[in-house]
Amino acid sequence: MPVYKAPADDVMFLLNDVLHWDRYGNLPGFSDASPDVVAAIVGEGAKISEEILQPLNLSGDREGCTRHPDGAVTTPKGFKDAYKAYAEGGWVGIAADPEYGGQGLPYTLGCVVNEFSASANMAFTMYPGLSQGAIAAISEHASADLKKIYLPKMISGEWTGTMNLTEPHCGTDLGLLKTKAAPNGDGTYSIAGQKIFISAGEQDLTENIVHLVLARIEGAPAGTRGISLFIVPKFLPDAAGQPGARNAVSCGSIEHKMGIHANATCVMNYDGARGFLIGEANKGLNAMFVMMNEARLGVANQGLAISEVAYQNAAAYAKDRLQGRSLSGAKAPDKPADPIIVHPDVRRMLLEIRAFNEAARALTLWTSLQADVARRSLDPKERLTADDFLGLLTPVLKGVLTDKGFENAVKAQQVFGGHGYVGEWGMEQFVRDARIAMIYEGANGIQALDLVGRKLPKDAGRALTAFLGEIQAFLKENEANADLKVYLGALKQGTCHLQQATMWLMQNAMGKPENAGAGSTDYMHLFGLVALGYMWARIAKAALARKAAEPAKADAMDAKLIAGKFFAERMMSESAAHLARISTGCDTIMSMKAEMF
Amino acid sequence: MPVYKAPADDVMFLLNDVLHWDRYGNLPGFSDASPDVVAAIVGEGAKISEEILQPLNLSGDREGCTRHPDGAVTTPKGFKDAYKAYAEGGWVGIAADPEYGGQGLPYTLGCVVNEFSASANMAFTMYPGLSQGAIAAISEHASADLKKIYLPKMISGEWTGTMNLTEPHCGTDLGLLKTKAAPNGDGTYSIAGQKIFISAGEQDLTENIVHLVLARIEGAPAGTRGISLFIVPKFLPDAAGQPGARNAVSCGSIEHKMGIHANATCVMNYDGARGFLIGEANKGLNAMFVMMNEARLGVANQGLAISEVAYQNAAAYAKDRLQGRSLSGAKAPDKPADPIIVHPDVRRMLLEIRAFNEAARALTLWTSLQADVARRSLDPKERLTADDFLGLLTPVLKGVLTDKGFENAVKAQQVFGGHGYVGEWGMEQFVRDARIAMIYEGANGIQALDLVGRKLPKDAGRALTAFLGEIQAFLKENEANADLKVYLGALKQGTCHLQQATMWLMQNAMGKPENAGAGSTDYMHLFGLVALGYMWARIAKAALARKAAEPAKADAMDAKLIAGKFFAERMMSESAAHLARISTGCDTIMSMKAEMF
Repeated sequence: MPVYKAPADDVMFLLNDVLHWDRYGNLPGFSDASPDVVAAIVGEGAKISEEILQPLNLSGDREGCTRHPDGAVTTPKGFKDAYKAYAEGGWVGIAADPEYGGQGLPYTLGCVVNEFSASANMAFTMYPGLSQGAIAAISEHASADLKKIYLPKMISGEWTGTMNLTEPHCGTDLGLLKTKAAPNGDGTYSIAGQKIFISAGEQDLTENIVHLVLARIEGAPAGTRGISLFIVPKFLPDAAGQPGARNAVSCGSIEHKMGIHANATCVMNYDGARGFLIGEANKGLNAMFVMMNEARLGVANQGLAISEVAYQNAAAYAKDRLQGRSLSGAKAPDKPADPIIVHPDVRRMLLEIRAFNEAARALTLWTSLQADVARRSLDPKERLTADDFLGLLTPVLKGVLTDKGFENAVKAQQVFGGHGYVGEWGMEQFVRDARIAMIYEGANGIQALDLVGRKLPKDAGRALTAFLGEIQAFLKENEANADLKVYLGALKQGTCHLQQATMWLMQNAMGKPENAGAGSTDYMHLFGLVALGYMWARIAKAALARKAAEPAKADAMDAKLIAGKFFAERMMSESAAHLARISTGCDTIMSMKAEMF
Repeated sequence: MPVYKAPADDVMFLLNDVLHWDRYGNLPGFSDASPDVVAAIVGEGAKISEEILQPLNLSGDREGCTRHPDGAVTTPKGFKDAYKAYAEGGWVGIAADPEYGGQGLPYTLGCVVNEFSASANMAFTMYPGLSQGAIAAISEHASADLKKIYLPKMISGEWTGTMNLTEPHCGTDLGLLKTKAAPNGDGTYSIAGQKIFISAGEQDLTENIVHLVLARIEGAPAGTRGISLFIVPKFLPDAAGQPGARNAVSCGSIEHKMGIHANATCVMNYDGARGFLIGEANKGLNAMFVMMNEARLGVANQGLAISEVAYQNAAAYAKDRLQGRSLSGAKAPDKPADPIIVHPDVRRMLLEIRAFNEAARALTLWTSLQADVARRSLDPKERLTADDFLGLLTPVLKGVLTDKGFENAVKAQQVFGGHGYVGEWGMEQFVRDARIAMIYEGANGIQALDLVGRKLPKDAGRALTAFLGEIQAFLKENEANADLKVYLGALKQGTCHLQQATMWLMQNAMGKPENAGAGSTDYMHLFGLVALGYMWARIAKAALARKAAEPAKADAMDAKLIAGKFFAERMMSESAAHLARISTGCDTIMSMKAEMF
């Protein structure tokens, strides 16, 4: 059975020492979240994840979801009670508007707890996770009437939300979608069509499900300019706001997937279901993007979450499993063999994961704080910069954290040898679960294109300029600190390669966009390396300070300094290879005729 | 449903144009394998793989194997008939000794067909694949009496073989094994113990199963010097050589694994089973290594095989799936969207796989030819060099082809977006199946250690010196050929990095072996890049010649030249990062205290 202990101490170190939580006290909602309150919330989030969600992870994977002939879906044993505990704990609406029953706490705290719960049970976490995205979209774009009906029930967790975009012939290219919305004459619409890959599309956890559905109103323009967003509840709320008549939406089948078996991935059939328009007609993609951006950060968090729990299990196994002897002589001569943690290659695998996890967590929290600032700050300039950073980093986090999260799950599985391939240790489940995060909410190739095609050139590169400016300022501010030399040196090198790559794109991709496409994935990962390297430099600085101030934490801080050094020495060396590949451009790639593939 | 077409044309091009099959005509057994005969065999191997094995792949995965209360195991529907066809086709004993009913054909041809069959159905191919390893071990080490009893039945495919090494507490470190062998006084032994992860340990395909079992004879020395190898048949052959009394060996359970569901992975219980010693007492590991080396090449082949079939499906999907428009303007304006093959990033993924596959196939065949020369040549010097190459390349092929094979399966799955994550397209099965190849027959970290710790220093580096010498000679011989410039340039760069890395190890790892351990995986992959780069240079040279000689093949040859250029421009750029990582040594890695992980 896999183990999991939420990294609450690391989170508190990151929030307080690295990200200076206290500096955000003036933001609305942050005043209620003093360091003590934050520590208590983080502790409670750790507890529910470790004690309630994690024990259901392996069993949930084995049992999976069951669709019954009437279209009802049963979630695995224990999920209903776990969901009840989760909802009653107020976790669904942790960051939601208090006007509708939310706790109004920083979004960042929601991200912290979502990492924990996804480590403990990714498939479970998707049920409330999708609700949070739907809550965000409704909050931002729906009418006051709709908000009043739906938000309180969703924020309390009594109802869940879903996201209905994909159709059999269209996923990435939503302009092709065919689901129709016909006006009923009373302001509502009649929705008809089929949606596929709908996570949590049907379940037995809640009394109602609120589907957010993209559809085309009759007569709307073709392509993405004719798409509208609708609320389509499973049960139509009655006058008292309680689930009333059954709506004409049903689960046609559930997919047999590689992983996340405990989350029902549904084909949803809309057979003239009653729908309520969110926001303006034909502006549905804008409204949906709120949900998608939120979901992208959530998915990035899943990449980190699986990487973390996979690391914990691999490290425990490596310290326990006796096999072979150290290359420099027996380390446990009293035992039949040494624990495999003595082997440099086993340590390399573990350190590659660890050095990613801690920086990725810092970057996730840094980015979530941007989201908080962008939404809450009273200073428009601050809001603008934070929003720029959020937009710029969202595709990077989604693409890089999920690519690496999956790779790391594979690496952690490798530490177990043959035991990693069989079900009982749970390592192979982490790999299967982590795999979807690279695909859904926009496949990672799409994230890379979003980065180089939209986020970089937007506003004449304002976001990137500001981001690089922040790094340069940090480098300058700390250049005299000899203890930071290795961390700053690597960051400098990576930043230099990122600048060169950006320059190359500016010079070569304006007139020939395929030069950007050909280097997009490399650029995204190069960006990720630099962002993680920046976080390592900040972590190292904070760790040195904490170690000096609190000698009892010397070992914990030394572990960070070593992991960061490993990142600087080994992992940043990939930046040159990314730059080299980006600079080769698209010519060879495009010279292959389609039929030659 | 996934598709598969065996790359028979590519194999014939590699054998004839790149590897000059005709030059091996003087080897015993090769005279029967003229190019025409080879083409016919390759064609038949393609046929059985495409028509009989591939249609059972998806269904075999879904159904899996079933263990019954009496310990019997049923393979999936259709496997019994497919196995019968495979055995009757003579494929099990294609390269085996004609004295015992084998076809005595080159080992290389066996490898060709094993790639096809593993692409078509990896789980199926493991049943005869393990037999081939067992046949090799018995042929080389068993007594004439044992050979006479077992080889004909195994070579004909009437009986299968298995390999019993792993126990619950030992896999890599066989010195810890506990299975006991007590002399019965009649020259046979009584075997008692438990083995785990035994592929094809029980099945319903054949009337008998021949287990090769490592055990410790009572009173034998501890560690690896006290291990002996035994034949333990499921049914003891009677005087007529037919399966007689049931032996005390049984399948206790089958594992629930991530993949290869159609191959039964068994816990095997030996309860005083009668065993027959192979070779000398306490020299069992030597005898088993014959089987393991053969098996390692077989597993390497599985990495390539899955990469190939995954590529074929991803390329077909990319040409078919309409989604979005080309960055440089619509390419299929008459359709609702362009096929996704227009996107540079999709092409990048496909080319990364393709550029690996073709060179990996060349390298596999080149190495198999070394095995043929090492076993068959009449010239002792030729045999020695070939054996050196075989020993040097075996861990490289096992480690690199399975690491990359898995990565490529993941990449090919990514091309499908969400459709890659659900079962029906078969892509997620390729990923799950490919994953085991990085683990079994020695986890890839062990391959890397075998390379840097044993194969490199052996005989004062004779094998590496000869390998680099061959590459240098090729570079020199072709340096004037301007058409080869990009291929040779990349090879030169990679070779230079490999030489620098080797030098670094020589200078830093002799006195501090953990410096070798810390860089071992990077070294193995750097070696792989160079070996693949060497193959690309040879392929490019042959493709240019073929194109000139046979204009009808211009497109096919151009595709090779483009894929090779992609490898040179993009994939070889990783060599510098490997060197950089190797040169950082072990200090940071080893400075982390075990309890800090």
